[in-house]
Amino acid sequence: MPKIYDDNLIRDRLTAVRTLMEKDGVDAYIIYTGDYHMSEYASDYFSEREFLSGFTGSAGELVVLRDKAALFTDGRYFVQAELQIKGKGIELMRKGQEGVPDIYDYLCQDAKLQENAKPVLGFDARTIDAASGLKFEKVAKKLGGSLAPDFNPVARIWEDRPAFPASKIYEIETGKDRKQKLSDLRSELAKKLDEDYIHFISSLDDIAWLLNLRANDVECNPVFMSYLILSPKECRLYANLDSIDEKLSKKLEDDGVSLFAYDSFYGDINKVTSTYILANQPKTYDLSLAIDAKRVNCKIYGMAHALTKAAFLSENNEPALRQALGKVNIKLECFENPTVLAKAIKNDYEIKNLIDLHVDDGLAVTRFIIWLKEKMADPDYDKAPITEYDAALYLDALREKIDDYIELSFGTISAYGANAAQMHYAASKDDCAYLERRGMLLVDSGGQYLRGTSDVTRTIALGPVTPAMKKDYTLSLKGMLALADAVFLEGCSGYSLDILARGPLWKENTDYRCGTGHGVGYLLNVHESPNAFRYRYTPGLSEYCKLEPGMVTSDEPGVYRDGQYGIRIENMILCEKDGHNEYGQFLRFKTLTIVPLDEELIDRSLLNEDDILRLENYQKFVYDTLSARMSDGERKKLAKLTCQA
Amino acid sequence: MPKIYDDNLIRDRLTAVRTLMEKDGVDAYIIYTGDYHMSEYASDYFSEREFLSGFTGSAGELVVLRDKAALFTDGRYFVQAELQIKGKGIELMRKGQEGVPDIYDYLCQDAKLQENAKPVLGFDARTIDAASGLKFEKVAKKLGGSLAPDFNPVARIWEDRPAFPASKIYEIETGKDRKQKLSDLRSELAKKLDEDYIHFISSLDDIAWLLNLRANDVECNPVFMSYLILSPKECRLYANLDSIDEKLSKKLEDDGVSLFAYDSFYGDINKVTSTYILANQPKTYDLSLAIDAKRVNCKIYGMAHALTKAAFLSENNEPALRQALGKVNIKLECFENPTVLAKAIKNDYEIKNLIDLHVDDGLAVTRFIIWLKEKMADPDYDKAPITEYDAALYLDALREKIDDYIELSFGTISAYGANAAQMHYAASKDDCAYLERRGMLLVDSGGQYLRGTSDVTRTIALGPVTPAMKKDYTLSLKGMLALADAVFLEGCSGYSLDILARGPLWKENTDYRCGTGHGVGYLLNVHESPNAFRYRYTPGLSEYCKLEPGMVTSDEPGVYRDGQYGIRIENMILCEKDGHNEYGQFLRFKTLTIVPLDEELIDRSLLNEDDILRLENYQKFVYDTLSARMSDGERKKLAKLTCQA
Repeated sequence: MPKIYDDNLIRDRLTAVRTLMEKDGVDAYIIYTGDYHMSEYASDYFSEREFLSGFTGSAGELVVLRDKAALFTDGRYFVQAELQIKGKGIELMRKGQEGVPDIYDYLCQDAKLQENAKPVLGFDARTIDAASGLKFEKVAKKLGGSLAPDFNPVARIWEDRPAFPASKIYEIETGKDRKQKLSDLRSELAKKLDEDYIHFISSLDDIAWLLNLRANDVECNPVFMSYLILSPKECRLYANLDSIDEKLSKKLEDDGVSLFAYDSFYGDINKVTSTYILANQPKTYDLSLAIDAKRVNCKIYGMAHALTKAAFLSENNEPALRQALGKVNIKLECFENPTVLAKAIKNDYEIKNLIDLHVDDGLAVTRFIIWLKEKMADPDYDKAPITEYDAALYLDALREKIDDYIELSFGTISAYGANAAQMHYAASKDDCAYLERRGMLLVDSGGQYLRGTSDVTRTIALGPVTPAMKKDYTLSLKGMLALADAVFLEGCSGYSLDILARGPLWKENTDYRCGTGHGVGYLLNVHESPNAFRYRYTPGLSEYCKLEPGMVTSDEPGVYRDGQYGIRIENMILCEKDGHNEYGQFLRFKTLTIVPLDEELIDRSLLNEDDILRLENYQKFVYDTLSARMSDGERKKLAKLTCQA
Repeated sequence: MPKIYDDNLIRDRLTAVRTLMEKDGVDAYIIYTGDYHMSEYASDYFSEREFLSGFTGSAGELVVLRDKAALFTDGRYFVQAELQIKGKGIELMRKGQEGVPDIYDYLCQDAKLQENAKPVLGFDARTIDAASGLKFEKVAKKLGGSLAPDFNPVARIWEDRPAFPASKIYEIETGKDRKQKLSDLRSELAKKLDEDYIHFISSLDDIAWLLNLRANDVECNPVFMSYLILSPKECRLYANLDSIDEKLSKKLEDDGVSLFAYDSFYGDINKVTSTYILANQPKTYDLSLAIDAKRVNCKIYGMAHALTKAAFLSENNEPALRQALGKVNIKLECFENPTVLAKAIKNDYEIKNLIDLHVDDGLAVTRFIIWLKEKMADPDYDKAPITEYDAALYLDALREKIDDYIELSFGTISAYGANAAQMHYAASKDDCAYLERRGMLLVDSGGQYLRGTSDVTRTIALGPVTPAMKKDYTLSLKGMLALADAVFLEGCSGYSLDILARGPLWKENTDYRCGTGHGVGYLLNVHESPNAFRYRYTPGLSEYCKLEPGMVTSDEPGVYRDGQYGIRIENMILCEKDGHNEYGQFLRFKTLTIVPLDEELIDRSLLNEDDILRLENYQKFVYDTLSARMSDGERKKLAKLTCQA
């Protein structure tokens, strides 16, 4: 059972919010998950949607109307969300399921809102992405209503709200110094805009990557709350100044990065723009405001957009500025932050470290598996059984022993039996299942190290398993290995390759209701755009990104049987060059993850020669790599796990 | 050897054109392949690019500058184009090859054009697509020059130009009458635009499909030269009136389709629009001009665009109209013709016919293969050898015997040995190779029938073959069978599935430099959008079309070894429903084509159990279906070909 809030607590909060809606004349209140930076994971300070709904998942939107409320979430969270919002007067909307409206249609189709002459949709524009903001504008228009973009009742009723994150910011080695990264970014922008520009960045991992800085503002995501304004001459970093020590701030200044208080960002959007224009007079020219509409909140988008309007002119009284502005054509240029692709393509230094760290990380997970299998083999196990939580703690402890370990890259998922059917199940000390000597344990875990980030999932047999379990595991395995073994021409995206992982399950009319894989950052977010393996293309939503050498992506097919069990097998794979000839540049993958696959769960009758060769090559690779670092005793156990004679 | 024009003839024509360029002050003359309707194949009347370059391929663009000329074409035609333009003072530009500029960069980068103060780019806007037209506008702007959109010197120097096509137009049964199709289209447009609209259609297959009409204006493409203007109340067909007999024209009028002369279309674009507006006064409202920017030429696009500008207003003197127009907001709405998707999804009537016709079509091709194999087995063959052309004639004759046969769906490709390395090689009576009792013959052919359209390719061993040939054939076969056997969730496009066909070849760093498959029309164009199997996604160029039940696509991987041999194996596959469950609607393919695969070319050591099962299932399906229609003698031969005991 995931964390369950008291029904009445949530109902009281909803009532309090509805009172404020009444008071402020808001008819629909929309709460997205997350911070002001469109981060996937946010610090507790921002968990407003959890506060008001009791749903703890990493993705989902809550809509509160005067008479009802609905939570929208995706396949990963159907089971968990159902459990967590039950009895709280909130309806679950399963995204992607046939017949389920999206949040916009839900609002448009609501009878009460339709009856209402001038319905008002309220939200905190800093927590809503630009695209959604524009769609809500359309919805409001369609309903003949309007928006209240600064409406945030939760902030007003949340008494014991956690503190705003402010962890220490530190510097790391990445094989490319920040001066180089800044100059590369400027040339990229100059190429795209060939004129004067001001580039606004608010995505935390882009800023951390660009400046070779890390921190701990978000658990498991080594980023820090910040905004960045880049022009041909200036680089302004807005962050918590107390988090940066003198030595570092001096270094940043030397590299051309000037520091400003986090809270002064919004005020500076207009100020910096007008100052820039003034400084470049009397020259008459175009000025481009470059933003990634998918990676800024709709408050930033709205302000930048306003700057392109004459309105901006009248707001300024200073005659010199008024005159200067008269000559300037301000354009809003929206495109993906150039840092997104640059960040995704790991350099040789990063790749060398990743390969190296995965030996240590693989050793830790393998030792965990050996320990677990032995525990389960112990006939006296039942006298002192362990829980999902105990198992997670044991694994985490093994990672902590690694020299450059910093923190987990996400909360270790240790899910036994039916719990594993919840893709992002989280066991807690007081609320978790005991491991029995049968069935399977799904363990999805990873670490943040100075050498990079890891993310690996293994599903482990704890004793006897059913043929159905073996079949589902084997089909997932087939797909995972087939994708990792792909050879393809430059120009392919993850959309071209996804079916290699999904195919064996699709043949049996089974699916895993989520992407096959996500990009992984370098000592950064464990979920990183733009590379991914998906099949359903949503223009504007999911990038269409060509795979390039240096990109690291997860490969994690699985099967989730509600109420029964869950299976996921995940390796991280690195894209690298294969042959080059008259047909062009061929690419392939190198598997980074080095952890045995559970032979007890494999039904070889479902594997063809190609599958078997892939399986045996991988197990041998694992044995050869890890055994060199093991004691004789351990080596024997690893040999058994990997079927090495 | 393909048809080769006399070098001097072409050089003289280029000189004559350059003289007219000089005279009219045009610095670059661009000639696209094709007619005024963006058709892939056009009647001889339109082969201006061939007239001026000697290149006969179905795709390619010629650029004539004052001092040089260049032909741009794709992988299918590299070999052929090289042969055909050699010695004619034209450079070959291999599209998609690394380092080869596209036509726009080629113009921008040309030194002479850059030096020129005001270069003029000339072309016939009726033969250029809208997107290209807009790009040429950019190019001209970049070069500081301008466009001459009505420049067509070829029309002025081409003395013995073929007549403009004007074949008889006839009606066919399609399982849905035109009144229904027209009302479906109008509701679709009303849904998209929810206001008044005028829809301009110029794509010949869309018009033929919408009205259940066919003709023979383009060889192998049963369409007729026409334009269509559709508004909520009117449907105006512009075509050659002499091609429509009284009975049919009466029927069309009864169904709400009024007829107008083909040549009056361009004049009517403005007239119909203003009349429409006038007729709907005094009501004030928005009027949408709906066009498919990818399926109209840039003359139509330009005129529609002009209508949205005030310019249009001033052109009109009639006071009532001037006043009416003053109230109207004319918008240009660009989206894919709704007929494109509707046409691609074959209905039950069409599917039943297609399945039925493929038995007859398969019988013809199979009998051809039996005949050919016997000829080659004859020890006296060399005394009376046959040519590629003879073989094609024999196959074509077998098709002609089929009851509802109309014509070929494209010129039969019969290519022996190295000729087959040219994807679209065309043997002619006087210029073709003799078949020898070794190596392979590639035969790509299809027919137009009242029951639909077929397209099938088989590569046939004529005697001993090399291990390399067997390997390439077997890898192509693996891919072809794997794609046809795919099961996938609704939401997949051809981009998700392409790798199933290409994978086995890619593993060996081999590719076939073209799409894996194209949609096929119903007694219409053998190449039909939007469904296709591709891996390289070009936003705006190639549609991202979800596969839907009823879509028919070709599945044709291959290997093309310049100067050695060519292999292609092509079946037509129909998308249909597989299971439906909590994961959604699964889809699969049914193979329509029923022709044996050549066991003499298969190296079974390269096939895994899955491949072998697919192969044997297909061969059995061919035997079971065709043998029922065969004599005992034929049946025995088919059993041998398909390895049936």
